[in-house]
Amino acid sequence: MGQVGKHGSFFLDSAVERSGSVYNATVHEAWGIAGNANGGYLMAIAARAMAGVSRPHPVSLTAHFLAPGTPGPVTIRPQVIKAGHRFTTVRASLSSEERQLVELLGSFSDLADVEGPVHIDAAPPDLPAPEDCIRVVPDPSGFPPPLMSKVDMRLHPEDSVFVTGRPSGRPLYRGWFRLPGETMDPFGMLLAVDAFPPTIFNAHLPIAWTPTLELTAHVRGLSEPGWLRCRFSTRFISGGMLEEDGDIWDESGRLVAQSRQLALQPRV
Amino acid sequence: MGQVGKHGSFFLDSAVERSGSVYNATVHEAWGIAGNANGGYLMAIAARAMAGVSRPHPVSLTAHFLAPGTPGPVTIRPQVIKAGHRFTTVRASLSSEERQLVELLGSFSDLADVEGPVHIDAAPPDLPAPEDCIRVVPDPSGFPPPLMSKVDMRLHPEDSVFVTGRPSGRPLYRGWFRLPGETMDPFGMLLAVDAFPPTIFNAHLPIAWTPTLELTAHVRGLSEPGWLRCRFSTRFISGGMLEEDGDIWDESGRLVAQSRQLALQPRV
Repeated sequence: MGQVGKHGSFFLDSAVERSGSVYNATVHEAWGIAGNANGGYLMAIAARAMAGVSRPHPVSLTAHFLAPGTPGPVTIRPQVIKAGHRFTTVRASLSSEERQLVELLGSFSDLADVEGPVHIDAAPPDLPAPEDCIRVVPDPSGFPPPLMSKVDMRLHPEDSVFVTGRPSGRPLYRGWFRLPGETMDPFGMLLAVDAFPPTIFNAHLPIAWTPTLELTAHVRGLSEPGWLRCRFSTRFISGGMLEEDGDIWDESGRLVAQSRQLALQPRV
Repeated sequence: MGQVGKHGSFFLDSAVERSGSVYNATVHEAWGIAGNANGGYLMAIAARAMAGVSRPHPVSLTAHFLAPGTPGPVTIRPQVIKAGHRFTTVRASLSSEERQLVELLGSFSDLADVEGPVHIDAAPPDLPAPEDCIRVVPDPSGFPPPLMSKVDMRLHPEDSVFVTGRPSGRPLYRGWFRLPGETMDPFGMLLAVDAFPPTIFNAHLPIAWTPTLELTAHVRGLSEPGWLRCRFSTRFISGGMLEEDGDIWDESGRLVAQSRQLALQPRV
């Protein structure tokens, strides 16, 4: 954990090791929220194994979360469904010693080959400079969670209920994100799309565990070095469920990832 | 095909029949576009088999499209990953006699059990009455495709390039949708999220086959009888790919489905 040489600790803590047809990895406690591993972190671990049998980058990756992940060893079983001309479709399971935690399905390709933008009908969120945003740091109470010691997240002051205790009333989070000392690759992007607090913490609803049923991330390009500008919002809290849509731009202003997750409304 | 009794022909043409651990179905030509089966139609067929081994309704369903589907027999192999307290996670393959066409992963539940709305930060698209919109009918040229004889789609006059030949310049389609003589259930919703023309037909780009790499649909509730109000839009055409986001409301004004697909930009 203290070992940060060429790579930082997200790279090390999400590493996988091949052993025949399976991959082994370790879920590290630091990437947790209330004792459970961050879902995007688990996706990144699984995606590294899926890339190992297919192509270098996740382009579209869907995860269904079956059980919370706790620290300890996990096994990933990737299976190639089809290797096509540009994309390889892969499924995988990620399991602890006790049970399966995540089932995944994705298409992998090489994002270095993609062409430039043609039509963009959206802009990155307008954020104050990182130093004028509110840095989220872990609290001994568990909120904000230990994960926040591993990442550098700066929330828009208007959205910072997590820190100030004053919900904005809008289920929205805007902010900066980076992995200190690390390059943000498509696997880090899988962490980024699930690292921000649940948008409904900013609605006038009880703050509680908001389990993700399913998350789909599209990695649309390779990020330039530097900060990511992120925006997560929810339009529909209904039927006991809510979607959370994420858009992530790199520091050069290019869209690099989109995400949508379906989560269960907290029952408190 | 002529047999429409209690149910209309979408129900019949997407029916599956269990045979041991697999399900058999027939891809009917009428639900095609340029000779290829509509992706949402294939998802609906697969979802019926997945529901057969799990719970009645798809809540979140992801499909990766591996090869175009042509008319003829198909086999669906569903596999339960986990049966939980409220949701059952299921994967499936859908294959023709020659090759696998689709790989799917979804969570199924009973949508009749869901609770009412809490927070809605969006409105259905503002549409002229169906009779004042432009009905899309098939053309012998293949565009609009034969599928349009099976569904009743009325496009907003401003978005109707498909019919008028004048692109609006905005990658957006708004319109009404229904299955004549049939109740719109969650399986019909899977058709609805992929039935509209590609949004980029309304951008100033060449009109060509826009293959879907991946589509994820969230069915957020059971629809009231009547028309669906639909909106499909694209914000980012970049790197040779585009996302298409769909929101579908029922006639009572309730959100019933959301979708996002990642498609490949036509290369012409």
